[in-house]
Amino acid sequence: MSQPRSATSTTFPLDRAVIRRFLEEQKLDLRTASIREINRLVGTIERDQGVRFIRMEFGIPGLPAHPVAIEAEIRALREQDVAHVYAPFDGVSALKEEAARFVERFMGVVVPPSCCIPTIGTMEGCFASLAVAGRLTRSRRTVLFLDPGFPVNRLQARFLGLGVRSLDFYDHRGPRLVDAVDSLAAGGDICAILWSSPNNPTWIALDESELLGLGRVCDRHGIVAIEDLAYFGMDVRRGVPRPGTPPYQPTVLRSTKHAISLISASKMFSYAGQRIGIAVLSPDLAAMEAEELVEFFGTRSVGHAFSHGVLYPIAACVPQAPQYGLLALLRAANAGDESVFAPAAEYARRAAIMKRKFLENGFRLVYDNDLGRPLADGFYFTVCHPAYASGVELLRELLRYGISAITLETTGSCRKEGLRACASLVGDDLFDELGERLRRFAEEQSS
Amino acid sequence: MSQPRSATSTTFPLDRAVIRRFLEEQKLDLRTASIREINRLVGTIERDQGVRFIRMEFGIPGLPAHPVAIEAEIRALREQDVAHVYAPFDGVSALKEEAARFVERFMGVVVPPSCCIPTIGTMEGCFASLAVAGRLTRSRRTVLFLDPGFPVNRLQARFLGLGVRSLDFYDHRGPRLVDAVDSLAAGGDICAILWSSPNNPTWIALDESELLGLGRVCDRHGIVAIEDLAYFGMDVRRGVPRPGTPPYQPTVLRSTKHAISLISASKMFSYAGQRIGIAVLSPDLAAMEAEELVEFFGTRSVGHAFSHGVLYPIAACVPQAPQYGLLALLRAANAGDESVFAPAAEYARRAAIMKRKFLENGFRLVYDNDLGRPLADGFYFTVCHPAYASGVELLRELLRYGISAITLETTGSCRKEGLRACASLVGDDLFDELGERLRRFAEEQSS
Repeated sequence: MSQPRSATSTTFPLDRAVIRRFLEEQKLDLRTASIREINRLVGTIERDQGVRFIRMEFGIPGLPAHPVAIEAEIRALREQDVAHVYAPFDGVSALKEEAARFVERFMGVVVPPSCCIPTIGTMEGCFASLAVAGRLTRSRRTVLFLDPGFPVNRLQARFLGLGVRSLDFYDHRGPRLVDAVDSLAAGGDICAILWSSPNNPTWIALDESELLGLGRVCDRHGIVAIEDLAYFGMDVRRGVPRPGTPPYQPTVLRSTKHAISLISASKMFSYAGQRIGIAVLSPDLAAMEAEELVEFFGTRSVGHAFSHGVLYPIAACVPQAPQYGLLALLRAANAGDESVFAPAAEYARRAAIMKRKFLENGFRLVYDNDLGRPLADGFYFTVCHPAYASGVELLRELLRYGISAITLETTGSCRKEGLRACASLVGDDLFDELGERLRRFAEEQSS
Repeated sequence: MSQPRSATSTTFPLDRAVIRRFLEEQKLDLRTASIREINRLVGTIERDQGVRFIRMEFGIPGLPAHPVAIEAEIRALREQDVAHVYAPFDGVSALKEEAARFVERFMGVVVPPSCCIPTIGTMEGCFASLAVAGRLTRSRRTVLFLDPGFPVNRLQARFLGLGVRSLDFYDHRGPRLVDAVDSLAAGGDICAILWSSPNNPTWIALDESELLGLGRVCDRHGIVAIEDLAYFGMDVRRGVPRPGTPPYQPTVLRSTKHAISLISASKMFSYAGQRIGIAVLSPDLAAMEAEELVEFFGTRSVGHAFSHGVLYPIAACVPQAPQYGLLALLRAANAGDESVFAPAAEYARRAAIMKRKFLENGFRLVYDNDLGRPLADGFYFTVCHPAYASGVELLRELLRYGISAITLETTGSCRKEGLRACASLVGDDLFDELGERLRRFAEEQSS
């Protein structure tokens, strides 16, 4: 296997036939290809062609995990001897308690530790949330996605046999968003509304008035609000999170009794490889009972169904050592150690530079404002190019220049022309190269 | 919280009203209570009454994990910097390769690394197997459990909306087992047959002729054989496993094209807390295509549905460090390091002592032979007492004596009189106490 050469624009653009060949070999349709499939495609091209891509397809943290987590895992393994013992299926007690403290100090919401349930990443938390919400009421088997979003949530709904509806942030923000959700909810078939904020992929962030409105809609119609906080604390316009000090992380937990808020350690703490997150159930939802849950989970209780009816049969429990790693991170955060929040600022710095290079070379942002304000710089941004009406075609061309991304179409967006770009893996050594490749791309467009 | 006193029989038996009160408080029905619920019940009684139970309810490894795994995890975290990076959704390559080598050396079966898929414990492997098998064909939505078995597999089937049928080993072994499975399979609604061997809870082990017969039935009817090898290499009658040397682990992989064999690290290597196992798909099954999979997984391919359609949306990937831990264990095993297999012998030693104490005090084994041969001593055994026709009543009484177990009924057994006892948590310091408590129990029976 040949090592990729150091980044250089001289070998680009690759021939269109080369890209076509790899797509055919891997039987890939760029329009529907998953992130992981694009990832594998690009890896194959890199190895085969001996080139190095600027990889923006994968929402993977590009910074090492904080030592406080690593050392806590090691202590748990060596000294606390956790490796042979199953964790409780609703999580290690100390982590549940620290998580409740974190929710109070950084979200300004009080919940008991029993409502803070560790999960194998937010992926599992989201899966469990959909599994329970989709089985509360037989007549409600449809999830409303506020789009664009994380593509895998759609795979989850499909796995669970749930229907899907979509509402796009592009033309729905503020009162218009809340009204549109309310009228869809009135249809009576919606079991849950799911969104991510700060949003993957647009980096818009729902504000308190929108969350208040969404919460009211959920309470009015008995719908579960599932809030994916994969990018908790990463809206850098709000400054570094400080315990017990506003502005708190905006959350729908404050505005509905029917909320599940999913806090991920993957991006905020750059800890994706060990798969650990926290699902926070609003206490009323956890205590709620529904007869129809019994058929699938053997219990009427929503809280019990979540941990005992889903998390337990899926994987028995969350692996032990990562729970201690996250415990240490939350403890540090709760004590005011700001170093644990460092990744957000670095991603924002990278995104600002990358966005500028795209804009200088004829691209524009697809989702280009946040309720009229400029978007924050963060983990993701969205781009399109006036010469391409189709994101698939744009991506196919960018691949020739050694630049990878995913189409907005796979994120559920109504904007077929756009791509999602992730800033996390593009470090300082690649910025000039990115600029150079985009310049050559721009040249070819105008030639 | 009061610490449990050291084990002593003087406080036992507890009053029947005390046990009743705890059951009512926790709204527990002993007949259907899950292992984890019994576990929590007993923990509560211990704390409240200041007593120490002899805990046989939980199939949890009682020995520390092997240092080779712990040190490999630590290296992965500290030196290989894996904590922030998602693993491939079909597993770390080196682990897949080492697993294929392990399958060849210890099972005598050749499969490519692509067919060895790391999972978050065998629990996730089993869940994924049922999820895929249950959706291959619309007309086949029923799982045949060879019972008794691991109770959580039934929760998995219920979660997935699959029907369940049961055939009991108690009166079906040898050709009788194969014939009975064949005639059930002829019904046309069975998608999968699932069993564990060495068996949880009876510790019987299917022999090569039974596996051959079951494999043929699966091929004939297009049914997936799901073999839970949670106790791989732990039938001590066969001696310590040696690489490339018969007797190999009996496996249905040898006798059908439609097999999934689930290899767990939890008990064999005492590694349950970190949740890591390997699902081995027979190559023909992995390559099989079925149009009906598309609706749920977006792919026709069984192998792709397994990793990309189930494992990916459930938890994104298997946590990284435990994959390196298991890699180190398999590498040691493949190189002939017998120390990694040490737990089996220790559990067998404990089980032999415990069984004797039960038998000396009027109990008998429920499943009491293995195709006419004596059962091996191992992780579990099954007991009943002639004075009790109901396992629930027997358990309720034993709880008074500070002895906990689960009913065979919850394991799907047709023998309502029995209990499952796990030997793993009962160490040398408790053997005399177990004997004394059982002696007092026996006295009360005859008084």
